[in-house]
Amino acid sequence: MNQRLEKFSNWLKETEQTFAFVHSSSNVFYLSDFECEPHERLLGLFIFPEHEPFLVLPGMEVDQAKDAGWEHEIIGHGDADNPWDMIHTALKNRGIMEATKVAIEKETLSYGRAEEVMKRYPSVTFTSAEDKLNELRLIKDTKELEVLKKAAALADFGVETGVKALREGCTEMEVLATIEYELKKKGIREMSFSTMVLFGEKAGQPHGNPGDRKLKKGDLVLFDLGVVLDGYCSDITRTVAFQEVNEKQKEIYDIVLNAQLQTLEISKPGTRLGDLDITAREVISKAGYGDYFPHRIGHGIGIDVHEYPSMSENNDSLLVEGMTYTIEPGIYLPEVGGVRIEDDVLVTKSGYETLTKYPKELQIIK
Amino acid sequence: MNQRLEKFSNWLKETEQTFAFVHSSSNVFYLSDFECEPHERLLGLFIFPEHEPFLVLPGMEVDQAKDAGWEHEIIGHGDADNPWDMIHTALKNRGIMEATKVAIEKETLSYGRAEEVMKRYPSVTFTSAEDKLNELRLIKDTKELEVLKKAAALADFGVETGVKALREGCTEMEVLATIEYELKKKGIREMSFSTMVLFGEKAGQPHGNPGDRKLKKGDLVLFDLGVVLDGYCSDITRTVAFQEVNEKQKEIYDIVLNAQLQTLEISKPGTRLGDLDITAREVISKAGYGDYFPHRIGHGIGIDVHEYPSMSENNDSLLVEGMTYTIEPGIYLPEVGGVRIEDDVLVTKSGYETLTKYPKELQIIK
Repeated sequence: MNQRLEKFSNWLKETEQTFAFVHSSSNVFYLSDFECEPHERLLGLFIFPEHEPFLVLPGMEVDQAKDAGWEHEIIGHGDADNPWDMIHTALKNRGIMEATKVAIEKETLSYGRAEEVMKRYPSVTFTSAEDKLNELRLIKDTKELEVLKKAAALADFGVETGVKALREGCTEMEVLATIEYELKKKGIREMSFSTMVLFGEKAGQPHGNPGDRKLKKGDLVLFDLGVVLDGYCSDITRTVAFQEVNEKQKEIYDIVLNAQLQTLEISKPGTRLGDLDITAREVISKAGYGDYFPHRIGHGIGIDVHEYPSMSENNDSLLVEGMTYTIEPGIYLPEVGGVRIEDDVLVTKSGYETLTKYPKELQIIK
Repeated sequence: MNQRLEKFSNWLKETEQTFAFVHSSSNVFYLSDFECEPHERLLGLFIFPEHEPFLVLPGMEVDQAKDAGWEHEIIGHGDADNPWDMIHTALKNRGIMEATKVAIEKETLSYGRAEEVMKRYPSVTFTSAEDKLNELRLIKDTKELEVLKKAAALADFGVETGVKALREGCTEMEVLATIEYELKKKGIREMSFSTMVLFGEKAGQPHGNPGDRKLKKGDLVLFDLGVVLDGYCSDITRTVAFQEVNEKQKEIYDIVLNAQLQTLEISKPGTRLGDLDITAREVISKAGYGDYFPHRIGHGIGIDVHEYPSMSENNDSLLVEGMTYTIEPGIYLPEVGGVRIEDDVLVTKSGYETLTKYPKELQIIK
């Protein structure tokens, strides 16, 4: 077994669990190196305190699991099979007739799939596999950081491409299309979320949608994008002004940048996570825009673009070396437009490093 | 209340349920016209046999829900709120102190969220909201069909763009980038799944991944793609040959096309769904390639690219006018390459109409 599986299996032993059923693409990938998007079909990694783990997956993915280096049992199911019968048998083969404590990903495993376990093991109680998996995934190893840095560099490139594509009269979707085209030509198959390119008042909506709004002199332009590279995500936001900038726009830009820099400044081992949110919020509130910063300061980033931890003000955990997360304060004014500045951040031994490196001083694109 | 909500609420009344908690983006959209991708944040539509429904959503989406026409109560939650406390209060305000039967989407609601309901209403039992929602969504109305047809035409355009982009030595990712660029310029923000462009032996993997494989004379080229338009999906697969085609490739192309056409032929009201799979499978098996068709014949398509029903051989339901689904037989030979031909199909009063219309006779691209 690989080290991650072994750690997880040891945890099952220590906490006296019968088995764990891990189903999410991201945790299966973390534990097995096998990337699979099974859609509505069942993907499952069953892990035991003592026995050999096994993978359950759509039959047509079996070869890819082997290619990814999975050396243990694989159960492939066809569209007409009931995979739960096959799982039940595989558990019996390991001498498991009853299950009392089973670890599942409570936040993502569907109630229906949990019910399949309950039906077969009526005395089961579920524990959270996520608590342990989040803890394992929280600290990125050297190999993961290497990929995250490359993914962040591609996000930088995405913003750079978008800025270069700005022309008076072009639409948000045209700029978005250009960004994704250039990234795809570099081999990126998947963006880590739906790319945002927002002009003018559209940038004033924290979750606006790109469309056929045409670029005009004096617009703020907000880019929010990221890529998936070798299973890891990046996420960057930059805001630029087109041709000219008014006082109000400049004012909110400076406040957001200041909030972001001050929050980065306290990013180091030992800082309380919630204090990151509070620091940015104080800067923005003191400037009079507290009501226009309606979201948390950031989120963990890694295999998932939004992963543990959630960086909101009430988070009492402390920053630890090797954590990666976003810092993304914003101000959104319905008429004026919006500004958000977001970096992917790594906690180092004594401070931080931003993985995304695109410049942050206000640019007025001519 | 709109008609869909009213039908659903009547079902809750008939089946004596306390309330329904609908959380998936697609079912919330179906019932409320509000499109929302809340990521890990909570989205919930609470529907009652007698009371007014309410929406729970991330605070920053409140305005967009109003813009989408939602006229009932909206509860916006911030990142530091516990939305379940707010839900509990909203239920109390409607006089609901206990819950016995609650309809949830068992296939997608997480166990953790179901647990939040169980904690507050310990005597609750869950029923499947999906059974009713699938039944409602199964038959598409005129407005839905209009959008599905436009989405299918854009999928046709995607294949056309891909075919035109084929040049000796180009990579799969370059062709993919061109397809998505042209679609995005037409305003498409989201593909309905990760676009597939596979060359040669790569097309011989039913779930291969596009990469830097270069196009060579004699390759089969498989395109599988679709778009999301106004909340509805399309999904098309076409296979073409580049510059020349050998006997084996031509043989499997003809078998797959024959299997697809024969399956379409029996697509009409009253046909057993499983018979669609069996028909295609028989054609392919008789020709000696049964082992190389490892997936079901198709799936329902609408708001979700894979939705109810699953078209595998053991499905005993009957086709009904207004259903939309895919028909997509394939043969995948590890060395030779693969062929899949897929259309989006609408069941009409007396037969069928394919929504995707890109030509299906074997093309040898010069």
